[in-house]
Amino acid sequence: MADTLTLDGLIAVLPADTVVTDPDIIAGYRQDRALDPEAGLPMAVVRARSTADVVAAVRWCAANRVPIIPRGAGTGLSGGSGGVVGAITISTERMREIEIDPVMRVAVVQPGLLNAEVKSAVKQHGLWYPPDPSSFEICSIGGNAATNAGGLCCVKYGVTTDYVLGMQVVLADGRAIRLGGPRLKDSAGLSLTKLFVGSEGTLGIITELTLRLLPPQPPASTVVASFASVHHATEAVLAITDQIRPAMLEFMDAVAINAVEDHLKMGLDRTAGAMLVAQSDAPGAAAADEIAIITAAFEANEASEVFSTDDVAEGEAFTVARRMAIPAVEKLGSLLLEDVGVPLPSLPALVDGIAAIAQRRDVMISVIAHAGDGNTHPLIVFDPTDTEQAARADLAFGEVMDLAIGLGGTITGEHGVGRLKKAWLPDQVGEDVMDVSRRIKDALDPDHLLNPGTMF
Amino acid sequence: MADTLTLDGLIAVLPADTVVTDPDIIAGYRQDRALDPEAGLPMAVVRARSTADVVAAVRWCAANRVPIIPRGAGTGLSGGSGGVVGAITISTERMREIEIDPVMRVAVVQPGLLNAEVKSAVKQHGLWYPPDPSSFEICSIGGNAATNAGGLCCVKYGVTTDYVLGMQVVLADGRAIRLGGPRLKDSAGLSLTKLFVGSEGTLGIITELTLRLLPPQPPASTVVASFASVHHATEAVLAITDQIRPAMLEFMDAVAINAVEDHLKMGLDRTAGAMLVAQSDAPGAAAADEIAIITAAFEANEASEVFSTDDVAEGEAFTVARRMAIPAVEKLGSLLLEDVGVPLPSLPALVDGIAAIAQRRDVMISVIAHAGDGNTHPLIVFDPTDTEQAARADLAFGEVMDLAIGLGGTITGEHGVGRLKKAWLPDQVGEDVMDVSRRIKDALDPDHLLNPGTMF
Repeated sequence: MADTLTLDGLIAVLPADTVVTDPDIIAGYRQDRALDPEAGLPMAVVRARSTADVVAAVRWCAANRVPIIPRGAGTGLSGGSGGVVGAITISTERMREIEIDPVMRVAVVQPGLLNAEVKSAVKQHGLWYPPDPSSFEICSIGGNAATNAGGLCCVKYGVTTDYVLGMQVVLADGRAIRLGGPRLKDSAGLSLTKLFVGSEGTLGIITELTLRLLPPQPPASTVVASFASVHHATEAVLAITDQIRPAMLEFMDAVAINAVEDHLKMGLDRTAGAMLVAQSDAPGAAAADEIAIITAAFEANEASEVFSTDDVAEGEAFTVARRMAIPAVEKLGSLLLEDVGVPLPSLPALVDGIAAIAQRRDVMISVIAHAGDGNTHPLIVFDPTDTEQAARADLAFGEVMDLAIGLGGTITGEHGVGRLKKAWLPDQVGEDVMDVSRRIKDALDPDHLLNPGTMF
Repeated sequence: MADTLTLDGLIAVLPADTVVTDPDIIAGYRQDRALDPEAGLPMAVVRARSTADVVAAVRWCAANRVPIIPRGAGTGLSGGSGGVVGAITISTERMREIEIDPVMRVAVVQPGLLNAEVKSAVKQHGLWYPPDPSSFEICSIGGNAATNAGGLCCVKYGVTTDYVLGMQVVLADGRAIRLGGPRLKDSAGLSLTKLFVGSEGTLGIITELTLRLLPPQPPASTVVASFASVHHATEAVLAITDQIRPAMLEFMDAVAINAVEDHLKMGLDRTAGAMLVAQSDAPGAAAADEIAIITAAFEANEASEVFSTDDVAEGEAFTVARRMAIPAVEKLGSLLLEDVGVPLPSLPALVDGIAAIAQRRDVMISVIAHAGDGNTHPLIVFDPTDTEQAARADLAFGEVMDLAIGLGGTITGEHGVGRLKKAWLPDQVGEDVMDVSRRIKDALDPDHLLNPGTMF
C-alpha cells in the first residue's frame, strides 16, 4: 500500500453513504466481542448494501493491496472480525434480504440478517432453521457461516455447515461466484460450499446463503437437575449420551449458576456444584421414553433436584438461563472465552483438568458447556487492572487449549480460530495440515488480503 | 515418465504380493461399472494393505511422475476409477479393518470395507450408518466418501459427507495427513475433511475414515402405489414433500417396473406408468400420521393400487425391487447411466423433459429416482452394435444433463463427475468455479498425478 493512498477511489466506486471515514464511527468496528487487545482501528468501513458493493470494495482493495476485514454483526468471540490498522472493514450489516421458498424448503438470505431474524422469518412459513448459537439474537447468519457456528440444538441437529446448501461469495480478486444451490444432493465438482463454510473470511466474503430448512421442531420436554459436583454432572451426561441423543444437553457450573441467578432470580440452586438442562423433542410417546432415560441418568448420578416439564415456555426459561450464562459471568470481570471440545468420553477429564488449571494458576474459570456434544466454554474471569492475574489468566487460556488437544479434542468447537487461538491451531492439526491449508489460502488469496491474522 | 521406467523400484518399496503386474489380473482393473470405452489398461495395480503401502506407492509415483488412479471396489458409475494407460491403479480393496466405539458412536474404518459390511459391523453394536447407495452390497466405503455417495435414506438422513467426521488421506506427494476426528463439533481451521469428501481421488487417497453413527433406525412402515403416468407419480412426490420428509421416496417408471418384475416375479403392476415406494420411520403414532399423508397424496394423484404395510420384511421386499432396477434394466442393453438432480419443484419438468429427449432421439430412457430429494437416474438403453443408435444415445446423454442444468439442477447428485461427465461440469458450475477448483487442485497436486481425467 502506497503511503499516499487516499480513500477517494474507494468512495468513488461505491454508493453515497457506504464508505465510513468518521473516526468515531470507525471506532465501533475496532473490536468484536472477543475484545482482543491487539485489535486496531481500520482505515475505513464499507457498509455494503449488495454483492455489487462488496465486489467494488474488494476490487479497490485488491488493486491497492489493502487488507480486508469481513465483518457481520461483530459478535465473534475469537477476534476474527476485529479491526486491523491499515485495513478496510467490509461490514455486511446492511445486507438483510431474505427469500423463503416453502416448497423447496430453502431460504436465500443475505449475510447481515441476524440468526434470530432468519429463524423468525422461516417460522412464518411453518419452517425451522435449527442452528442456534447462544448469541442468536445478536449474531448474523453470515458470521454463523463464516465460523461454522453451533449452538444448543446441535447435539441432535448438527451445525451450520449441515444447513448451507449454497452461497454467493466474493473472492479476493473481487469476482463473485455462486457455489451449490437449492439441491439436497449435489456431487458435481469439489465441495467448495463446505470449504468456504468455517473459513472465517480468509477465502472470500459470503454475500448470500442458501439454507436448508426443516419442518418445525416438535414441542420439547425439559428436565433440569442440580448436582453436588461438576463430576457428577459430566458422568450424568455420558450416562445419557450412551443411550440417546437428546435435543439439548447443557451444563453450567456453580459460578455460572450464581451469576445467572443474580440476574434472573428464578430460584436456581445456588448451593449446587453444577446444573444440567436437557430436552427431548422426540415425537409422541418417544419423548416420555427419552425423558425417563434422562431422569434416570440424573438420579443415578445423585442429582439433588430433578425437575421436568412438558410446558414449552417453562422449559424455555431454563434455556434462557443457560443462554444468559456468558453475559452474566462477564459481569464478574474481564473474560477470556474458550470453546474447547473433546470426544464425549473425555468430557469429565476435560472439566476436571480445567479445574486443576484454575487452581494451579489461581484464576477463576467458570465452565458452561453444550455438554451433549462435548463442546465446553470455560470462561476465564480476571481483573484486567491486576497485571499479574491477567498474565496468569493468559497462561491458563493456553493451558486449557493444550489440555483439550491432549485429550484428542479441538481448540474451537463453534467460535472459530480467529486471531486469539491461531497460535494453538498447528498444535491441534499438525504442520502438514497447516501446509495444506496454507496452500489453499495461497491459491485463492495469493496476496493474503482477506482477514489477515485470522487462522493463518 | 521416462521410457525406460521399470516397476522394480515400486516392487522394492512394497511388501511381496502387493504390486500386480500380471496383465490378466490388471485387465480386471481397466473398467469400473461405468464401462467407459476410453478406459485404458494401467501399467500395474498396487493392492495396498495399509496406509504405509499407499504412502510408498504414491511416493514412487510422485518421484517418477507416474499418474495414479485410486480405486475402491470399482463400482463407480461415472468412470472415475477406470484405468489409464501408463498409470498405476492403487486399490484399497484389501484395507478392510474397522474399529467401532459405541460410546463415541463412531467407526474408524479402512476404505476397502464395503458399505454393507460397515452397516453390518456397527449394527452389532446397536448402531446405524445411514448412507445406503443402491449398490451398498458391492461398493466400498472409501469410494462412497470419494464420490460423496447418497442412497435411498438420504432424503431424510443426508449423504456421506454428513457422516464423515475425519479421515486419513495420502496427498499427491505421499504425505499421510489426518483431518478432523471423533468430535461432533470442530471449527478449527479450514474444513478440509469436507473438501476431500467428494473430491473423487483428485486431491488425495483416503486410507481411513472416521464415521459418525446413529442409533438404530426405527422400524419403517412402507406404502407402495402404482400410477397411470410418470407425471401423476412426480406430482404425488411434490404433494408429499410439501408436507413431510419421508424416510424413503423412490420412483420407478414402466420400463424399470417390468425389468424388475421379469427377475423378481413379485406381482408388480406391469401396466402401470410409474410406481412409488415410500417409507416413514417416524416413532410411534407419528408414523401413522406420515403414512396417512403419503397415502392421501397417492390417492389424490389417482394411484391405482395403494398398498401399505408395517411389516419391515414386506416393506424391504419393495426396497429390494427398487435397488434391483439398475441391474434389471441393464439386461435390456448397454446403459448410459445418468445421475441428474433438480430442486424438487422441477422434478415433474425434469421427468417430462427426459421423455421428450427419448422421443426426439428415438432411444429408450428408463427413469428411476430417489424422487424425494429430486435425484433421478435416467438409464439410456442402447444396442452398442447399432452405431447409429449408440450415437443417438450419446446425444441424449448430454441433453439430459443440459436439461438438468437448465432447470437449476446438477449433473450428478451422488455418483460424482468422473470422466464421463466432466465435459458438462463447467456448464453447471461456471468458469469461475472451475478456476477456483483448478487452483485448489494445482495447489495440492501440482503435477496432476492424482486421478487424471477425472473431474478436471
